[in-house]
Amino acid sequence: MRVLGIDCGTEYTGYGVVELCADGALLCRAFGAIRLSPRQPMAVRLAEISRCLGAIIAEHQPEHVAIEDVFYAANAKSAIKLGQVRGVAMLAASSVGLTVAEYAPLAIKSAVVGYGRAEKHQVQQMVMRLLRLEHAPEPADAADALAIAICHLHTAGTKERQKQRQPAAAG
Amino acid sequence: MRVLGIDCGTEYTGYGVVELCADGALLCRAFGAIRLSPRQPMAVRLAEISRCLGAIIAEHQPEHVAIEDVFYAANAKSAIKLGQVRGVAMLAASSVGLTVAEYAPLAIKSAVVGYGRAEKHQVQQMVMRLLRLEHAPEPADAADALAIAICHLHTAGTKERQKQRQPAAAG
Repeated sequence: MRVLGIDCGTEYTGYGVVELCADGALLCRAFGAIRLSPRQPMAVRLAEISRCLGAIIAEHQPEHVAIEDVFYAANAKSAIKLGQVRGVAMLAASSVGLTVAEYAPLAIKSAVVGYGRAEKHQVQQMVMRLLRLEHAPEPADAADALAIAICHLHTAGTKERQKQRQPAAAG
Repeated sequence: MRVLGIDCGTEYTGYGVVELCADGALLCRAFGAIRLSPRQPMAVRLAEISRCLGAIIAEHQPEHVAIEDVFYAANAKSAIKLGQVRGVAMLAASSVGLTVAEYAPLAIKSAVVGYGRAEKHQVQQMVMRLLRLEHAPEPADAADALAIAICHLHTAGTKERQKQRQPAAAG
């Protein structure tokens, strides 16, 4: 199973593609961040995110897309700006028939670090270890995106095992 | 000049196409609302808005797109949801090379009713008169979208006249 995690942001939007191999190992396929110029009009920035995410999906062919669920923002204006990026990211997935899973920040950190209130550098370090990378992924937005993808693979794996157990328990 | 006004909403997204004719009259080309099923996942709803707005732009070929600027939301969650729809609407414009103008609710109501704190039904009534429609546009989201388009045409007209005056004043 291959998952694209997206960490939406109004300045940097991180992305990370992680694959769960047949032997249970996690393989990092790609990661990075789309940087948006604050000098460009918002509509132009959104078109750039759409183009980049479309190219990443076309190249890496993920079966699922996962993003972070957001419950808090400093004010309505910044929440709306973040929502705009999120909407474009969700559309990049749904326009090619991919479903979008959303995970709370606590769930993502718990899945990767084992602690819901972990710091950014702890997430980076654990993502590096779990994916056996030589360096911690930079920028932090890319590490966050990889963490979202790992969280989805863990959750999907647990659900799959539960499904396999249920018929046996019923029988 | 032909303008598409979009009134973004998480349940109904209104749209209205208004043309400023050579004789200064305003002509209503189209209006309506895209209804989103709350039962559908958000990513699917966003794909539906994207598809509908793309079709409206292709059919009516507006030269400009205008949306309402938002400063207030009940909470971060609803601001992010509204932002998602806004992002997809802005992308529908920018992906075909159209610029997006944003107007504050006060500016829109002032341009149409002459009073920034006008009620929804007053906007509907004034839009009906300005566009010489037989009935008030329904739903209110469609009337709001037409009001946004009218506001843009007023503002663009004023800017155009100011531009024409400036060289004479300088000379």
